[in-house]
Amino acid sequence: MATPAETSLLDVLRGIVGASNVLTGDGLEAYEVDWRKRHHGRALAVARPASTAEVAAVVRACAAHRTSIVPQGGNTGLVGGSTPDASGTQVLLSLTRMNAIRGVDVANLTMTVEAGCVLQVVQQTAAERGLLFALSLAAEGSCTIGGNLATNAGGTQVLRYGNAREQCLGLEFVTAAGEVCDDLAGLRKDNTGYDLRDLLIGSEGTLGIITAATLKLEPQPAARTTALVTLASIDDAVAWLGLAQARLGASLTGFEIMGAFALELVAKHFPQQRQPLEPAPWTVLIEQSDPESAEHAASVFESALETALERGLVRDAVLASSLEQSKALWHLRESIPLAQALEGLNIKHDISLPVSRIAEFVAATDAELQQAFAGVRLVNFGHLGDGNLHYNVQCPAGGDAAAFLREHEAAVNTLVYDAVTRRGGSISAEHGIGSLKREELVRRKSPVALQLMRAIKSALDPDGRLNPGRVV
Amino acid sequence: MATPAETSLLDVLRGIVGASNVLTGDGLEAYEVDWRKRHHGRALAVARPASTAEVAAVVRACAAHRTSIVPQGGNTGLVGGSTPDASGTQVLLSLTRMNAIRGVDVANLTMTVEAGCVLQVVQQTAAERGLLFALSLAAEGSCTIGGNLATNAGGTQVLRYGNAREQCLGLEFVTAAGEVCDDLAGLRKDNTGYDLRDLLIGSEGTLGIITAATLKLEPQPAARTTALVTLASIDDAVAWLGLAQARLGASLTGFEIMGAFALELVAKHFPQQRQPLEPAPWTVLIEQSDPESAEHAASVFESALETALERGLVRDAVLASSLEQSKALWHLRESIPLAQALEGLNIKHDISLPVSRIAEFVAATDAELQQAFAGVRLVNFGHLGDGNLHYNVQCPAGGDAAAFLREHEAAVNTLVYDAVTRRGGSISAEHGIGSLKREELVRRKSPVALQLMRAIKSALDPDGRLNPGRVV
Repeated sequence: MATPAETSLLDVLRGIVGASNVLTGDGLEAYEVDWRKRHHGRALAVARPASTAEVAAVVRACAAHRTSIVPQGGNTGLVGGSTPDASGTQVLLSLTRMNAIRGVDVANLTMTVEAGCVLQVVQQTAAERGLLFALSLAAEGSCTIGGNLATNAGGTQVLRYGNAREQCLGLEFVTAAGEVCDDLAGLRKDNTGYDLRDLLIGSEGTLGIITAATLKLEPQPAARTTALVTLASIDDAVAWLGLAQARLGASLTGFEIMGAFALELVAKHFPQQRQPLEPAPWTVLIEQSDPESAEHAASVFESALETALERGLVRDAVLASSLEQSKALWHLRESIPLAQALEGLNIKHDISLPVSRIAEFVAATDAELQQAFAGVRLVNFGHLGDGNLHYNVQCPAGGDAAAFLREHEAAVNTLVYDAVTRRGGSISAEHGIGSLKREELVRRKSPVALQLMRAIKSALDPDGRLNPGRVV
Repeated sequence: MATPAETSLLDVLRGIVGASNVLTGDGLEAYEVDWRKRHHGRALAVARPASTAEVAAVVRACAAHRTSIVPQGGNTGLVGGSTPDASGTQVLLSLTRMNAIRGVDVANLTMTVEAGCVLQVVQQTAAERGLLFALSLAAEGSCTIGGNLATNAGGTQVLRYGNAREQCLGLEFVTAAGEVCDDLAGLRKDNTGYDLRDLLIGSEGTLGIITAATLKLEPQPAARTTALVTLASIDDAVAWLGLAQARLGASLTGFEIMGAFALELVAKHFPQQRQPLEPAPWTVLIEQSDPESAEHAASVFESALETALERGLVRDAVLASSLEQSKALWHLRESIPLAQALEGLNIKHDISLPVSRIAEFVAATDAELQQAFAGVRLVNFGHLGDGNLHYNVQCPAGGDAAAFLREHEAAVNTLVYDAVTRRGGSISAEHGIGSLKREELVRRKSPVALQLMRAIKSALDPDGRLNPGRVV
């Protein structure tokens, strides 16, 4: 039962966004449960504003009623950052109705979009103008640009185009006081004061609510090459990466590494997917995006590959000879998380390290894990060009995965995160902190940095109403 | 005369950095007067620490003595951001002794350097490893990387590599409380909390003192093409930019525009410099950096240029056929500020706009200026690819420049900044705010943004000891 104060807030919210856009009661799982179904909450109401002014009014109403707000986009996050807590007192603010493309400026290579735009729609809108919006990740069919920015999403083209942060020129957001801060002009240089844009990006809705953004576009490349190569070691993969960077320059847009066991799981659970190369300790998927032509792309790529073969860095290679084959190679890579899920529960780590330390980290940590938990299987894959591994641990073959997680998840996390921390790495490369890694963050982030983060949170959201319990 | 408390602070500072590194008295113009000789201050002392621990100790000592600190690198800033005020009570903290290259990680494509490293030394250190540090600007022979980051410097390759911000992966800095925050691991992805790095970058020493940074390196390009082309209009230049971006892709690394009067001044004051093309309303200097070869670079560039000539975008063009010729073309561009200074005092504006609005802005604002101040001459040049113009106003020919500035500088600024503000542009694209543009910032920045900036300043430097009177 809502209290009288809550009933009064619901009435105010109905007045702002319309009665049909204030959802209460049962059947709100799509908003209250996260994508991985790990976090089950209960909202006082789901409010679905259609404009920035409505978002601001909702924030002011919640402030007046001392009610906290959980902003949500496509609800595809992996760290429990966008679902309500169990109290039933929070307002879930869904941005999905704010999905207008406000404009494309071809000469300026920018697009201004509302926070609720689905990433794929943004990509398609750019493509229709012969342009590229380069952010690309598994959830692109349902994640929203507001969520991508609030979590500083990464994905498969960071190597060339950067994270979500680097692909955004400016934001419109609503502050904790319900005021609108707007910086959507699309400037590539602006040194007028502190970088509020980058402070909001990656703050997971705890410092303000992103309502729109002006995004950087790129010319659409003339041709793409996709290739799969097999290698004996991560050291060889890092050397091949350096060679490819030097020879392909900025046309190297993807460099994804996959461990043998990751591809074994794909073979087991998706036997219909053809794996064109003999299994090897490591496989790399490379993507090249060329501004000139397919012929030029092939000639540059083949010349670099030849050098890699001569130097013994690469065992075997296959180039996609059609768009269909290219998609099939990407599909192998994209099937790993699903194959892993079909194999059973597992312990995920989204870590990053300097590229130069990846090989040593993997060798040492694999060994430490085997010593502590004999027989565990490593599903190791990720964005080698960014030093970002999804270093996931599966229970020993034939074991009871649920029991293994119950007994060992915390110890496995400690072992892996200790190994990462010792090497100056990050325990969250591209997924964020949310509620899932908040305690781990407190243990591992420098106390000075934590203190500054808390001071910033208090300064910008003094009553702690924006997405409480996340990040700091 | 120093007060007893000041004498006591000086003793403490001598204990920290050594007596020979606490400078007092006369003869400190190199620290107390800015590069343009517009801001003349007086410091209680210049402290020259040699390590991060010494910087932290100096900050703690100054806090204990309620003394404010002005950090300084190469003292090449253009907005009065790094010289002391006239009170004689501030400690000037010079970072120039902290000039170690801490390390280069070739596989990770990073270099860790101390704040006092001169930019050119960083560039050369990268080049010695066959790598590129892509930040490049006029003052590179004497500016320091700490100052570059504190002001988020721009320069001539932003089009391809971004501002100083985009070329930095992490910072070490000293907080207002004298604690050290360190994030130098060189990660390309790290979503563990608020983006303190980008908050410090561009904060001009008001939120913390940058002591070291880990910088992004790039493979050294195999070949460069430098060309000069003449055009009839800015519209044509914007169309040529779009064409070059599509055809050259990321190998387009520079696109500098120069107005006719700017090059006229170079011809007048540096007659020995050869200008290879017939004068035209606009001239563009283009730089292409190719990962393959000189032959490939030339073939791609010439094909794009041919299209531009066919479309009537470009009147005439010349390609440098040697490194020497390339340097001569760049020298023309770099001589503009000096030629302008030799012509007499002038009113500088470092503005940015969306690239798509530059042509209309220049046409309308030129006309407004002529109407208000008949005969003024526009020295207009800058980084068209970034929407960044140095839109400078010189008094009418034969006029008394000093008198013109006394009488009209404020009104000229208002006219130009009003025109910029109406179009959503920035009054400081790459130079920062310092003390020079602080009042203008208050007039023109959104009140909501200003309020957030002040809240952040209070949170991170509650006693206002770090570079007071700058930015906010």
